[in-house]
Amino acid sequence: MIENQTRIRARFAETDQMGVVYYANYFVWMEVARVEYCRALGFEYRDFERDAGAGLAVLEASCKYRASARFDEPVQIICKCVESKSRTIRFSYEMRREEDGKLLASGETLHAVVNKEGRTVRLPETYRRYFPLGGV
Amino acid sequence: MIENQTRIRARFAETDQMGVVYYANYFVWMEVARVEYCRALGFEYRDFERDAGAGLAVLEASCKYRASARFDEPVQIICKCVESKSRTIRFSYEMRREEDGKLLASGETLHAVVNKEGRTVRLPETYRRYFPLGGV
Amino acid sequence: MIENQTRIRARFAETDQMGVVYYANYFVWMEVARVEYCRALGFEYRDFERDAGAGLAVLEASCKYRASARFDEPVQIICKCVESKSRTIRFSYEMRREEDGKLLASGETLHAVVNKEGRTVRLPETYRRYFPLGGV
Amino acid sequence: MIENQTRIRARFAETDQMGVVYYANYFVWMEVARVEYCRALGFEYRDFERDAGAGLAVLEASCKYRASARFDEPVQIICKCVESKSRTIRFSYEMRREEDGKLLASGETLHAVVNKEGRTVRLPETYRRYFPLGGV
Repeated sequence: MIENQTRIRARFAETDQMGVVYYANYFVWMEVARVEYCRALGFEYRDFERDAGAGLAVLEASCKYRASARFDEPVQIICKCVESKSRTIRFSYEMRREEDGKLLASGETLHAVVNKEGRTVRLPETYRRYFPLGGV
Repeated sequence: MIENQTRIRARFAETDQMGVVYYANYFVWMEVARVEYCRALGFEYRDFERDAGAGLAVLEASCKYRASARFDEPVQIICKCVESKSRTIRFSYEMRREEDGKLLASGETLHAVVNKEGRTVRLPETYRRYFPLGGV
Repeated sequence: MIENQTRIRARFAETDQMGVVYYANYFVWMEVARVEYCRALGFEYRDFERDAGAGLAVLEASCKYRASARFDEPVQIICKCVESKSRTIRFSYEMRREEDGKLLASGETLHAVVNKEGRTVRLPETYRRYFPLGGV
Repeated sequence: MIENQTRIRARFAETDQMGVVYYANYFVWMEVARVEYCRALGFEYRDFERDAGAGLAVLEASCKYRASARFDEPVQIICKCVESKSRTIRFSYEMRREEDGKLLASGETLHAVVNKEGRTVRLPETYRRYFPLGGV
């Protein structure tokens, strides 16, 4: 399975009074990386929502924090799909300081494919090629 | 016209590395106060959205910052409607430190009444009694 | 060990275009509950930071999502300390819709006690009585 | 005076249940553009904070919203300094949809130069060349 790298810079808005990026914001970064991952696979997540009438609802999310990200630091987020089932998809993430490659945090999110009513459904067939069944 | 007071506490998430509440978050506080203002008037903003099929889209927002809000400080937000026209409503806000009444910030938001398609419409008649035409 | 209940309302700012609360915001809610938990124990988290010169850096955070929180819904967050070691503290959280008690999400956070330089230290003795060594 | 253009994409986290970017987040975008503006001028805002021991505290912020930004849309933010006095700096912003150049929002922020204690001070001389006294 492919992996994709996304580059962001820590925003001032994302810091807290400890002088580092607030812990919840790493989950926002994972979302940014997830959307770019889809683009790298060959489709736009917003089209997935519009055309397939489906979304990826988050079932689980976790993060381990190793080092602090600081304001304005470039951060590389490596995202990959690590498990694809008929109705769920799991992504993993590594967030690294660009300057020295230091691991800042690693995380995972598990998603259910849901329709507009929020009910779990099978991944639409036209998108299965992007997420072949299996895991790593 | 009535005014309503809402009490919040500055969250850790809302601070930035300067050790005070990040400036954009005051606009979130205004929204919290606006929703409580509607409740004080006698209706729920979420019902307004559901039943009237309408929303209040923000046209303008402004804030003047006088003193810093700090983590965990109780803050009183005084909200009132200062202008009500057929298709727009203007609110003003004062944010005061609860401990000593010190003015932290003051602001205004101007809203258009919009339908589900985002087009500007007249305020539904059933809600006009909450926002009688006029200004202060 | 005690547990504490905090009540919040889902903010408009916290929703996303799926019409429900965005997943990262549950971690903000956990922080709000954590601060209230400390207050219920008998101390202010901000004093802990100021007086003890210490903070609780997040090492791990996780959340399982069961049902969606919607705008303006009152949510009860039950927080408790489930593990207390010399240098780390673990909290668990349950977020329930107030109206019917439905479980929306459950999560955990693991924290290291850190000094102003960000180095892991022992919990200051004056705070040990709030977090007696042990687990549940 | 120069102006600088910054490109961002609207994040899923930045949308609200109206399906568009939540109004407070435009102020976060202004901050992102402000930091990039400083970089274009020739210095890093984080160095300004570290070396000069100074910051730019927000005194006023305002935004006019013309059209909605939607998830994943590329947005161009044009930022320029429109007024520079001994102790204050004013920036203006235009946020345009990249695809068709449509104006989404325009805004302004007024900042005071402050030292570490939060007191207003003169802009350090070494930074005056980036912000020559005057206005447009």
